[in-house]
Amino acid sequence: MAPRKEQQIFQATLELLAAKGYQGLTVEGVAERSGVNKTTIYRWWPSKAALLAAALVESDLLATDPPDTGSLRGDLEALVRGIAALLTRPPASDVAVAALGAAVHHAELAETARTFFADRFAREEIVFERARGRGELSAAADPVLIMDLLAGAVWLRAVFRGLPLDDGFAACAVSAVLDGAADQPERAAGMRSRTG
Amino acid sequence: MAPRKEQQIFQATLELLAAKGYQGLTVEGVAERSGVNKTTIYRWWPSKAALLAAALVESDLLATDPPDTGSLRGDLEALVRGIAALLTRPPASDVAVAALGAAVHHAELAETARTFFADRFAREEIVFERARGRGELSAAADPVLIMDLLAGAVWLRAVFRGLPLDDGFAACAVSAVLDGAADQPERAAGMRSRTG
Repeated sequence: MAPRKEQQIFQATLELLAAKGYQGLTVEGVAERSGVNKTTIYRWWPSKAALLAAALVESDLLATDPPDTGSLRGDLEALVRGIAALLTRPPASDVAVAALGAAVHHAELAETARTFFADRFAREEIVFERARGRGELSAAADPVLIMDLLAGAVWLRAVFRGLPLDDGFAACAVSAVLDGAADQPERAAGMRSRTG
Repeated sequence: MAPRKEQQIFQATLELLAAKGYQGLTVEGVAERSGVNKTTIYRWWPSKAALLAAALVESDLLATDPPDTGSLRGDLEALVRGIAALLTRPPASDVAVAALGAAVHHAELAETARTFFADRFAREEIVFERARGRGELSAAADPVLIMDLLAGAVWLRAVFRGLPLDDGFAACAVSAVLDGAADQPERAAGMRSRTG
């Protein structure tokens, strides 16, 4: 399928999801909105769950380039700002929150959510590879866990608590996971037990 | 209202939510299931959103006592295990995931979600007060942020990624936020810029 046509289908899919929720999302509706024949869409994606998974991963609407600021701290702050924008700034936030919210309720979307997060981490991984090359990351650090802590905190604040996320939040959240919250003696004890 | 009767109403509310979702939750249904008159319920809680908010905060089903293991590390690991159980072990997880998922879709539940998280933090706060008393927490540390990072990571893994959360997860997640992921020189730089 031509890339431009594919993007039209993905955009129609995500717009329909944001407007009507997952229950209101139908391949018929996507066909109508994108001007692409229904049978053509079914030939490429066998179900609306499969179509949504492809749209979430491949649509230009949610695409991001990994930051390259020259430091792990700067890159992680940029990633946190990007996740905050994804969850709070329309139209991307309408799509992302509707899709992730639907994944909570519809078992058939469990795989879609896993695919979405695996794809995002695959894009973010280069940030941690560069940081290891610069000697910025401790040997015991787990990049997936770091991203789960940061992205999870953004989700919890923006979606569940409905709090605004300003630039200060990114710096504080990144400092928490890079510098640690323990006072010095306690941290030293933790470091020993971690490496021992 | 008698505490026992109140708990019956709350339990009926949460069971109905878990079974039928927020749209299927009605005060009529709660009245039927709890054996309490509908008008009595309305006298105490003016809407189903108000009833759900009260049930989430006051029901014995979701209640937890803050841990007191003698160290901040031990207490935080216990809190993470408690949140993981809340989001993965039925029947509490059916209720918690249904309620939080509904909060994503229904604007009238935004206040309910805020109340729920504020109440949980109010119960957790003693852990951080004791840690400050023992000198375990750095002056710059933000307890709300620490809980948002930890609870957010549990939500993201358990609900969105569908990954099992074993005991190792609690130790790793707590180590990340207490000890920090930065290598030593980078961390020292971060500490200077934080306190400077």
